[in-house]
Amino acid sequence: MKTNPGRFFEDYTVGEVIEHAVPRTLAGGEKALYHALYPARHALHSCEAFARDCGLSGPIDDLIVFHTVFGKTVPDISLNAVANLGYADGRWLRPVYPGDSLTAQSRVIGLKQNSSGKNGVVWVRTTGRNQRGEEVLDYVRWVMVRKRDPEAPAPETVVPDLPDVVAPAALVVPEGLDFAAYDFTLAGEPHRWGDYGIGERIDHVDRVTIEEAEHMMATRLWQNTAKVHFDATNREDGRRLIYGGHVISLARALSFNGLANAQIIAALNGGAHVSPCFAGDTVTAWSEVLDKAETAVPSVGALRLRLVAQKAGAPACSLRGEDGKYADGVLLDLDYWVLIPT
Amino acid sequence: MKTNPGRFFEDYTVGEVIEHAVPRTLAGGEKALYHALYPARHALHSCEAFARDCGLSGPIDDLIVFHTVFGKTVPDISLNAVANLGYADGRWLRPVYPGDSLTAQSRVIGLKQNSSGKNGVVWVRTTGRNQRGEEVLDYVRWVMVRKRDPEAPAPETVVPDLPDVVAPAALVVPEGLDFAAYDFTLAGEPHRWGDYGIGERIDHVDRVTIEEAEHMMATRLWQNTAKVHFDATNREDGRRLIYGGHVISLARALSFNGLANAQIIAALNGGAHVSPCFAGDTVTAWSEVLDKAETAVPSVGALRLRLVAQKAGAPACSLRGEDGKYADGVLLDLDYWVLIPT
Amino acid sequence: MKTNPGRFFEDYTVGEVIEHAVPRTLAGGEKALYHALYPARHALHSCEAFARDCGLSGPIDDLIVFHTVFGKTVPDISLNAVANLGYADGRWLRPVYPGDSLTAQSRVIGLKQNSSGKNGVVWVRTTGRNQRGEEVLDYVRWVMVRKRDPEAPAPETVVPDLPDVVAPAALVVPEGLDFAAYDFTLAGEPHRWGDYGIGERIDHVDRVTIEEAEHMMATRLWQNTAKVHFDATNREDGRRLIYGGHVISLARALSFNGLANAQIIAALNGGAHVSPCFAGDTVTAWSEVLDKAETAVPSVGALRLRLVAQKAGAPACSLRGEDGKYADGVLLDLDYWVLIPT
Repeated sequence: MKTNPGRFFEDYTVGEVIEHAVPRTLAGGEKALYHALYPARHALHSCEAFARDCGLSGPIDDLIVFHTVFGKTVPDISLNAVANLGYADGRWLRPVYPGDSLTAQSRVIGLKQNSSGKNGVVWVRTTGRNQRGEEVLDYVRWVMVRKRDPEAPAPETVVPDLPDVVAPAALVVPEGLDFAAYDFTLAGEPHRWGDYGIGERIDHVDRVTIEEAEHMMATRLWQNTAKVHFDATNREDGRRLIYGGHVISLARALSFNGLANAQIIAALNGGAHVSPCFAGDTVTAWSEVLDKAETAVPSVGALRLRLVAQKAGAPACSLRGEDGKYADGVLLDLDYWVLIPT
Repeated sequence: MKTNPGRFFEDYTVGEVIEHAVPRTLAGGEKALYHALYPARHALHSCEAFARDCGLSGPIDDLIVFHTVFGKTVPDISLNAVANLGYADGRWLRPVYPGDSLTAQSRVIGLKQNSSGKNGVVWVRTTGRNQRGEEVLDYVRWVMVRKRDPEAPAPETVVPDLPDVVAPAALVVPEGLDFAAYDFTLAGEPHRWGDYGIGERIDHVDRVTIEEAEHMMATRLWQNTAKVHFDATNREDGRRLIYGGHVISLARALSFNGLANAQIIAALNGGAHVSPCFAGDTVTAWSEVLDKAETAVPSVGALRLRLVAQKAGAPACSLRGEDGKYADGVLLDLDYWVLIPT
Repeated sequence: MKTNPGRFFEDYTVGEVIEHAVPRTLAGGEKALYHALYPARHALHSCEAFARDCGLSGPIDDLIVFHTVFGKTVPDISLNAVANLGYADGRWLRPVYPGDSLTAQSRVIGLKQNSSGKNGVVWVRTTGRNQRGEEVLDYVRWVMVRKRDPEAPAPETVVPDLPDVVAPAALVVPEGLDFAAYDFTLAGEPHRWGDYGIGERIDHVDRVTIEEAEHMMATRLWQNTAKVHFDATNREDGRRLIYGGHVISLARALSFNGLANAQIIAALNGGAHVSPCFAGDTVTAWSEVLDKAETAVPSVGALRLRLVAQKAGAPACSLRGEDGKYADGVLLDLDYWVLIPT
């Protein structure tokens, strides 16, 4: 058979390195589409002149890089996945510029068969590189993958030791980035690093109703091949499941309203796709400041943020109910570090 | 509160200058999306080689420039607007080329509280500039804006003196533009400036049915943040109001069929968004030649056009009924100057 | 009348050459949109670095070139067409690179009035050229076109002599193309020319459900002006007919899964749009290897493929029923040559 059936749980070995296919060049077309598909307004990614004034030359949005690298991994990692369970230890290591070509590679770092014997959890550390082989992104994700043969023997259980949060000292400030001459008026808000307090919550107010054409165009642009996003005959109810990364980008874009100066994503500490999102859903977002840190560049501070996406019907700033479970309507609970002017 | 609640009527002062946020670089990606979102076919904006033969180097479509500058103003001018009332004295002052970065600034030039005391009309003159600070677009618009506090005192009424039409002598012919070697076959129609007569009406025949995903992608691309365009929960009937500029671009693109040589928009004399447009509407357009003028460049003539967009069900070339009111189905009544080969 | 009513059957003369309007520059924006609109993953068109390693510099996808040239012809050839009957003798003659500007020209090579006298078949040979006048694409298509006046005299019948298949010796291998250093891992599959056998069938497995916004954006991007694709009021059932080329691109993109190394389309031998496709349809595809050939470049082989698109409900690899007619659910039956590493 010449088509790719995807890998099953018993096809992974700890330590194995998988070179993902289909390298991808990112340029101005992808940037423009990102602005058409998400209400993205962060000035650093909207305007080359603004970016140059910050010491960078019109970089590709950090989430475009994430989605592109993630998309490469789907045919090898999550084509037969039952669930995308989590992210950890993700860092953006170097800006990607228009014209750069990305490849992705994953190392299997953990395996644990489920007690049912029908599937198991696979941990991979995925690295994205540019055409010079320089690392641009590195993160861990783990997924639950079906077994082809339930009778296949269980591998030795290896659960990787993962940090709850990327340490501030490990955050990479892009070479050349300097917010010393930052124009807060052009960026859209006066709030700087010092204006945010740990525990502060921001309701980002704006709402977007998602259409099938939009999430499919976005997910295709990242060459993500998971069937559930494109095939209305795949689910019994005839709906297409929206790629979790689409909700991440939508929530991040909505967070401009209150976090307009959080220009750069530096790290992904963790994240849960709490409930499925479908076309017709109206999404809103809120953030909580979880931590603050300085960086090696005096004009650049770091904020650790929780970013929550929820459906419009749910109470503002929903998270968990009294039972400790996620409240109805919560779609995404993301934990990440951003860089912001001090 | 860190999010932007928008300005209310009592927040404006005549003479005040507002620097709008989020500068934006326009390039080939935006050009391609414009061709995907509208049936745009004017050769000058479709083909760099054709543009060069006209003395320009592949400029960005005039309406992309308009929408981008307009989009910048929304968070400061029309976030709490009840209605977009009109445009006047708009001129394109200089071509925008791929890679140019635009900023926008508005000066408040008029204020008039409504007799109800609940809202008022705000007139602004908005100027778009490129990264060298050169003016590329300048226009007046006025909107009705809600008051935050109905008890707030009314400002002194100032109603600006605005021209009904931009004088032909004030039209800017882009530096270098010359239609002397214009190829009418490649452009698609033989009709030149002399072939159009004042009073002539052209039914542009073609029709386009609009989808939610399309108008939202377009409006987002211009970073227009008005909630009504994106949020299906915003209106009681669950519909999203289509950005008026989307109808302008759609009608302008449809007008290719009969005005294929009207390559450049030079001025916006006025315009009314007569009735709301929603996804599912099928739109058609017609034009009337209101005036003709020569320019300083012998090969370049100017036509003053009325461009009307209407729903497909209405009689062809609908405008006003016997009562003088706009006929049912009319969506847009735009008055503008174009440049066309003589 | 200034608008284009399109040509009718009696307006064509054998030997006549029609210069099509609206030249078009293709660049990175069109490439990005292609990836958003189709699940295209062939590495040569996804990544400039990969393309350079094959001796080319990031060419525009062959089908983007086809759609662009085809779109130019619509206002002159098929605006009043009843049916698009077939393709023959199509060859891609030279790669198109970002920034190239295309024009199109058609020569009428055949005419045959139908026995009803109401319409007739028009054969045209269409040639696409770049801004240097070099031919990039050349193909024959024939359409059934309405007569304006059923009483108009029938022209002399001329039926061109067309090859069933482009001869292997006539296939053009792009100058510089060399698969000697081809990276099969990056390309996504190990299967090379020698691994495919004549008669082999490949079910491409993946499925895509089409939305109205997607096919309209694609078809507009190619500046195809046929009313049936955009106007929901055009058909009595309120549906928009999807441009046949949209189904070609979708099926070609789906064929990545099993034909990942079929990087370049060299020739179009023939094709039938078997049944209409509408938004909401879920499409899948399969291929059959019809023939194999060597080329003048040792590292480059050619496969002649049948590419069939069908609706998801039909049995896998549907083609014809026992009556010899196309089976229910078949949308497209395309016959083309691809270039693939040996």
